[in-house]
Amino acid sequence: MNYSSLSPLDYRYYDKALAPYLSEEAAVHYQAQVEVALVAELAEEGICSKKVASEIAKAAQKVKAEDVYKEEAVIKHNIRALVNVMKRHVSKQAKPYIHLTATSMDIVNTADSARVKDVVDAVVVPELVELERTLINIARQEKDTVQIGRTHGQHAEPITFGFALAEYVDRLGGRIDTVRDANKELRGKLSGAVGAYNASSIFIKNPVDFESKVLKRLGLQPARHATQIVEPEYLLDLHHSLASTFGVLASLADDLRHLQRSEIKEVAEHFQGKQVGSSTMPHKRNPIHFENVKSLWKAFVPRMMTGYMDQLSEHQRDLTNSASGKFTLELISGVTIAAKRLRRVLDRLVVDKEHMTSNFRKAADMVVAEPAYLLLAKYGHPDAHEIIRQLTLRAEHKGTLFVDELRAEDSVKEYTAKFSQSEWNMLKEPETYVGLAPKRTEAITKYWEGRLNEYGLS
Amino acid sequence: MNYSSLSPLDYRYYDKALAPYLSEEAAVHYQAQVEVALVAELAEEGICSKKVASEIAKAAQKVKAEDVYKEEAVIKHNIRALVNVMKRHVSKQAKPYIHLTATSMDIVNTADSARVKDVVDAVVVPELVELERTLINIARQEKDTVQIGRTHGQHAEPITFGFALAEYVDRLGGRIDTVRDANKELRGKLSGAVGAYNASSIFIKNPVDFESKVLKRLGLQPARHATQIVEPEYLLDLHHSLASTFGVLASLADDLRHLQRSEIKEVAEHFQGKQVGSSTMPHKRNPIHFENVKSLWKAFVPRMMTGYMDQLSEHQRDLTNSASGKFTLELISGVTIAAKRLRRVLDRLVVDKEHMTSNFRKAADMVVAEPAYLLLAKYGHPDAHEIIRQLTLRAEHKGTLFVDELRAEDSVKEYTAKFSQSEWNMLKEPETYVGLAPKRTEAITKYWEGRLNEYGLS
Amino acid sequence: MNYSSLSPLDYRYYDKALAPYLSEEAAVHYQAQVEVALVAELAEEGICSKKVASEIAKAAQKVKAEDVYKEEAVIKHNIRALVNVMKRHVSKQAKPYIHLTATSMDIVNTADSARVKDVVDAVVVPELVELERTLINIARQEKDTVQIGRTHGQHAEPITFGFALAEYVDRLGGRIDTVRDANKELRGKLSGAVGAYNASSIFIKNPVDFESKVLKRLGLQPARHATQIVEPEYLLDLHHSLASTFGVLASLADDLRHLQRSEIKEVAEHFQGKQVGSSTMPHKRNPIHFENVKSLWKAFVPRMMTGYMDQLSEHQRDLTNSASGKFTLELISGVTIAAKRLRRVLDRLVVDKEHMTSNFRKAADMVVAEPAYLLLAKYGHPDAHEIIRQLTLRAEHKGTLFVDELRAEDSVKEYTAKFSQSEWNMLKEPETYVGLAPKRTEAITKYWEGRLNEYGLS
Amino acid sequence: MNYSSLSPLDYRYYDKALAPYLSEEAAVHYQAQVEVALVAELAEEGICSKKVASEIAKAAQKVKAEDVYKEEAVIKHNIRALVNVMKRHVSKQAKPYIHLTATSMDIVNTADSARVKDVVDAVVVPELVELERTLINIARQEKDTVQIGRTHGQHAEPITFGFALAEYVDRLGGRIDTVRDANKELRGKLSGAVGAYNASSIFIKNPVDFESKVLKRLGLQPARHATQIVEPEYLLDLHHSLASTFGVLASLADDLRHLQRSEIKEVAEHFQGKQVGSSTMPHKRNPIHFENVKSLWKAFVPRMMTGYMDQLSEHQRDLTNSASGKFTLELISGVTIAAKRLRRVLDRLVVDKEHMTSNFRKAADMVVAEPAYLLLAKYGHPDAHEIIRQLTLRAEHKGTLFVDELRAEDSVKEYTAKFSQSEWNMLKEPETYVGLAPKRTEAITKYWEGRLNEYGLS
Repeated sequence: MNYSSLSPLDYRYYDKALAPYLSEEAAVHYQAQVEVALVAELAEEGICSKKVASEIAKAAQKVKAEDVYKEEAVIKHNIRALVNVMKRHVSKQAKPYIHLTATSMDIVNTADSARVKDVVDAVVVPELVELERTLINIARQEKDTVQIGRTHGQHAEPITFGFALAEYVDRLGGRIDTVRDANKELRGKLSGAVGAYNASSIFIKNPVDFESKVLKRLGLQPARHATQIVEPEYLLDLHHSLASTFGVLASLADDLRHLQRSEIKEVAEHFQGKQVGSSTMPHKRNPIHFENVKSLWKAFVPRMMTGYMDQLSEHQRDLTNSASGKFTLELISGVTIAAKRLRRVLDRLVVDKEHMTSNFRKAADMVVAEPAYLLLAKYGHPDAHEIIRQLTLRAEHKGTLFVDELRAEDSVKEYTAKFSQSEWNMLKEPETYVGLAPKRTEAITKYWEGRLNEYGLS
Repeated sequence: MNYSSLSPLDYRYYDKALAPYLSEEAAVHYQAQVEVALVAELAEEGICSKKVASEIAKAAQKVKAEDVYKEEAVIKHNIRALVNVMKRHVSKQAKPYIHLTATSMDIVNTADSARVKDVVDAVVVPELVELERTLINIARQEKDTVQIGRTHGQHAEPITFGFALAEYVDRLGGRIDTVRDANKELRGKLSGAVGAYNASSIFIKNPVDFESKVLKRLGLQPARHATQIVEPEYLLDLHHSLASTFGVLASLADDLRHLQRSEIKEVAEHFQGKQVGSSTMPHKRNPIHFENVKSLWKAFVPRMMTGYMDQLSEHQRDLTNSASGKFTLELISGVTIAAKRLRRVLDRLVVDKEHMTSNFRKAADMVVAEPAYLLLAKYGHPDAHEIIRQLTLRAEHKGTLFVDELRAEDSVKEYTAKFSQSEWNMLKEPETYVGLAPKRTEAITKYWEGRLNEYGLS
Repeated sequence: MNYSSLSPLDYRYYDKALAPYLSEEAAVHYQAQVEVALVAELAEEGICSKKVASEIAKAAQKVKAEDVYKEEAVIKHNIRALVNVMKRHVSKQAKPYIHLTATSMDIVNTADSARVKDVVDAVVVPELVELERTLINIARQEKDTVQIGRTHGQHAEPITFGFALAEYVDRLGGRIDTVRDANKELRGKLSGAVGAYNASSIFIKNPVDFESKVLKRLGLQPARHATQIVEPEYLLDLHHSLASTFGVLASLADDLRHLQRSEIKEVAEHFQGKQVGSSTMPHKRNPIHFENVKSLWKAFVPRMMTGYMDQLSEHQRDLTNSASGKFTLELISGVTIAAKRLRRVLDRLVVDKEHMTSNFRKAADMVVAEPAYLLLAKYGHPDAHEIIRQLTLRAEHKGTLFVDELRAEDSVKEYTAKFSQSEWNMLKEPETYVGLAPKRTEAITKYWEGRLNEYGLS
Repeated sequence: MNYSSLSPLDYRYYDKALAPYLSEEAAVHYQAQVEVALVAELAEEGICSKKVASEIAKAAQKVKAEDVYKEEAVIKHNIRALVNVMKRHVSKQAKPYIHLTATSMDIVNTADSARVKDVVDAVVVPELVELERTLINIARQEKDTVQIGRTHGQHAEPITFGFALAEYVDRLGGRIDTVRDANKELRGKLSGAVGAYNASSIFIKNPVDFESKVLKRLGLQPARHATQIVEPEYLLDLHHSLASTFGVLASLADDLRHLQRSEIKEVAEHFQGKQVGSSTMPHKRNPIHFENVKSLWKAFVPRMMTGYMDQLSEHQRDLTNSASGKFTLELISGVTIAAKRLRRVLDRLVVDKEHMTSNFRKAADMVVAEPAYLLLAKYGHPDAHEIIRQLTLRAEHKGTLFVDELRAEDSVKEYTAKFSQSEWNMLKEPETYVGLAPKRTEAITKYWEGRLNEYGLS
């Protein structure tokens, strides 16, 4: 954390777990490693000696971002600056082979793909998986906890709180799959200044094969086609997977935030002993973490637009995707920070079953309007929905119980007489009208537990 | 086309091929078909008779959007209005079974998934495939046509025009795959008002299985999980695939637009005999179709943000995704219209090889700076890039040929003496320095031709 | 309404009050009127006769969008098509003077500014003003209705419901001012193909003055500078004013939507006798109009991005702002439809004072923590906030009244002893702790009522 | 610059001139100053002594962001942490008066308005004014330099290069006015937790007046209305003014970038002696600064969407605008960095008049098609545009000069015979057909020079 920073990412929300991949020091480090992989393969090809390759590999360890920036200040070109800095640490014999056949973007694009791939594998996905496990645990614990389902903010039909969370188990799970799939598709390139392997064709018999071998050393595949740069869609798909993951986090946070409303109080963020809720209202308990997650989502998701705009690059490339391409990587930081925050607060989520029950009881009489209408229809009433609608209005108006109005209504007696005892019971005990909520919660959490285990993480 | 319309989609850009899927008449038609599929399966389940199901199927044919809107004007609910209109056309016995166990969004979501799936399969993908075939043809025709590659708008290294188009063959091909994959994932639902199968559980033994059967009749799978609505990510992924396809079209259009600049003139839109270029400059020939494609892209791609915002829906659903969800479907129209326009203009693209050659010749002397530097490095010069950089400046300054400066330069004689004859030839005939451009064009077009044939379209 | 339309603007949300300005028929009509104004001024300048001008003015009345489109289908240029259609209706003598000195964009840009200006003055602003008046009325009626203020969804300090609405009176009022200001700035142009008055300089002594006179006939000023097109910032500022107005509408709708939650129930949308809330839950009363307003906001506000992108136009103009420029005008329709919808539902808003009071009572004991802390501080307690925070926790834990805990607390006796009787009264009657809520409501509504009257509308 | 930062704003694009306003250290500093202003006015009101106020003012000097963060780590509330840190530095007597009557957002909102106002006045506007002066200078220098005007990337009609730049003088000038106007409207607040002056009403007779006095000390006016927070539209309007300024910078950069294309070469970025254009193509001269400006625009402008989303805040405020509100301030940094970069490169812009002339000559014959058509019309030809269109096609086809074809064409002899000598001269010397380009350049640069002088800057 640095208090003279201009970006909140570098003061309030700084996460040092991300720096080994997403900082400028990291970028330079990965770029040097691409140069190393290139020379290693030039040596395999017999173009330089293995000694030269090993000398260069050692030199790469000594490269510091600061030195590269100093050199760039003189020559105004970042990758040529990197090459110059590396050259300082090698013998005259080795100098010609650093960067040989490559264009800057071979190095930059490949390094970016490698470090993004690494951060997603090593930090982002593990964070999301942790969050998913937390959600699975709570969903299971609460699979039978009856809650009133809400649509339009109105009491609708009964579910269980576990089932409500199963929604997010499934949506987050689905997004993790999407993130992993997109991440596997990140590609590198080594096809030179305009993508036609012009330079490497001078030295190397099979430049396409050579490119594959260099990239394999870095855990990457080659782009199916490239100009000066890798096709932008590989990274854009990853960004989309992350942006849409962010939406799932925000929707979950929003739901929990509303469930913490003073009038609802079904959940609460854990509150520490010394924690202050408001600088002026000493009694306040605010859902600050849920609010924060939604707020970060608002800050980062619009940046997808930058990614879409960066799909346009003139001819074999213009540079108008360079600065913007650096900023779009911030989305990775944003979603990771939000996921970590959400997981921490969920780990200590307070579920208030008492309020869940009392909220449900308020709605209970009315929610059986649905099964009542369905039972009337089942027994052949041609206009069941309309008659039930009128009975609910009447009950509301008179302040009576809907189920009593139903039982008393002469015009439907020919149908209600056919209701079975268990059907009447359901109308009188609305908490049994939860459908498959518990079973579905079990099925969904089991499915995703299985998937997570397949990932072989933690 | 309707001149009193408010949206350009309904006057200037109206495409009647889309109306059977994306108009309101189409929406109502698909909704009625979902009701039909539901009752058909209720009959299989023995809840109503097959006669009832067949009566309802016939009634669905008679439903008109206009009638549904009139009924909605009275009762203020669109799906209940649809049900009421359908009821008018059936016997008293059949009335109770229309919509039984369903909530409105079961019908709306399922109908939307079905019609989007259909329009993508029947109109969008075929249009994109046509465009892809057109691109493949031109890329092949021009695979050996030497063109100066451009980076930063500056002459860089040689490619061929076919290779330049191979970029778009590959990017568009990749996007078609993505669109098709996302489209297959569109899902329906029949799990009721809060997604817990509350209603269907009253009547049906295995409501999850029942849901699958209804949806299968409509060519859809069920959502893995649903609240009142299908999880938004299925459709959002499709939108992303289309938005990113749009970016590829816009980038291609932008490239061609610039290649048509007065000073470059390497391609041109075909111009008809009576066509007017400007109302005041009778001599103008403008790249209006390429400009139009980029302009449509600007109009539609920002709408992705609406999709990302619609990921948030409170609890078991609020309705704030309803109007917005209708508008996001316009993206499908937008990309289709742009693809069709682009294909038509490419079908008659004018390639001006003469200007392609003359532009190349202007750059030719300098582009060999790259192979010259590489050859110096190959023969062991420790600072090849810098010496060549100085020689290009000197040649520019003196108005001489770079290659002559190189040959004359004493300080590099020990290296240039080692250049082979064929290496000198390349430096003197820069048009041979195209790397693998023709071969890669062949490989890429062959690959995508194969993929398109696998699709089994046209 | 047209059920084969592709855009929801032309089926579900069609508003015929907008068509005289925003339809294609309207665009053509306004373009013809610009041609008329131009010739009228050419006549004043003595370049053609007044008879010619009057002949052309009559011809303009006969122009139909359909005819122009037919001509455009042949010659592929919309404004030259308009000119050709107009020529059909005039004598040979008049033909040369139609469009003389103008370029297409002189006509299109000017016509667009004129019709946007008109629709904003005649439809958009009056709708917003109506909404503002409705808000003023409710705010005044409810200026003394005590409501618990909510921050973070948590009960905070008391306000009145009128004061809550005064927020929107003020924000909407401010936006109406901004919309009106931006609208006045819309400009036309008549400076020809590249903006340098090349063509008009041939005929006219003072082309800048001539431009002003033509535009004055249309109620417009000239752009300070133009290329082929008017600088985009004038219209962009109007779009921003409308987009930010939309945000105010959405925030208001969102607040009311939440106040209608089953657990809060402080307001409700009026519900008609035959209205159906849900196709399956006959008892539902949903805030569908508030949801709709927020949803429309999500559909339209992201389109601002298109406007920002259209600021870039190469050199003296490329055409990539043409299609997109047509679509950005849809924002005008969107915000108008939302405002009208919101006003209608507010006209019959149900305010449930009973629930407002009962919600307030739940919070009442705790909200006096703030004045209690302030009074302690007033009488010199060095750490008042912390001691009160602990007392609220203790009261919550023990289930006692906070005010009783305060009175009983020995450690603060030296300060509480100094509380005046009226101070203790306030702590016991929290509904008096509303600050200036009623007075501020009066002041704000009075201010805006005055402003609206200055507008001289209705 | 910090190489372990996550945001490019804090490594590659860090600008230390912004840190005194936009860093977290700056935020804390401004917040402490708001507390100081509040207590100063409490002293004026007689609520505390002037000694207390002066003690607190001294304490504020000692506050460090780091200390506040440490305290916040314990109590989880940033402003209460600030208050606690300040309390450490004052006597027991002074402690109760820090923050008295204020809520956190009174401090945060007011501090943010003050520091944004300051950075815009002290850094942003001066940078934009510098850029404007640079543009004015170049426009004047080049006011008579004939350039071919380009529409659709096609040669259109003649202008001068100064006139082309006058477009940006005017657009940027207009935006500076808008930025300044919006900045003056930034507001503070001191109306407490829900905006109704609940707390201050306890102590202070006229809390609205009191608020004004506190804010006046900070150079701010009060919001017309507030909840817990200032209405968001004040800041949103400023963001819009900056985002739209960014669009003007990007459009200018884009134009210059294209004018630097190898085939056009009318301008160039200055290139330093040691500067490297490409790591592999030693001869390259790339428009990297122009590209950078456009790229930054793509990175920042989509963030406007965050601002529009932050207009929605539930009831008297939710916190979902907190993190996002910090990130939206980055837009200020972005546009400043881009303006500075653009100004520096323009200061040494290379204008290549030779290529400007040779490009113009290529177009010269055809551009007189416009005046030729106008002259035919002037002398009464009823279909002048069509006949000229055909003559341009004929000249192109035959490879002859258009003006010769015109002179030779029998069918128009009756009209061409009437052309005056000076009219024929114009057709033969197209470089005179620049309309008012030089005069307009003078007028526009003069107007803006005057405006800048009124600002009283530099």
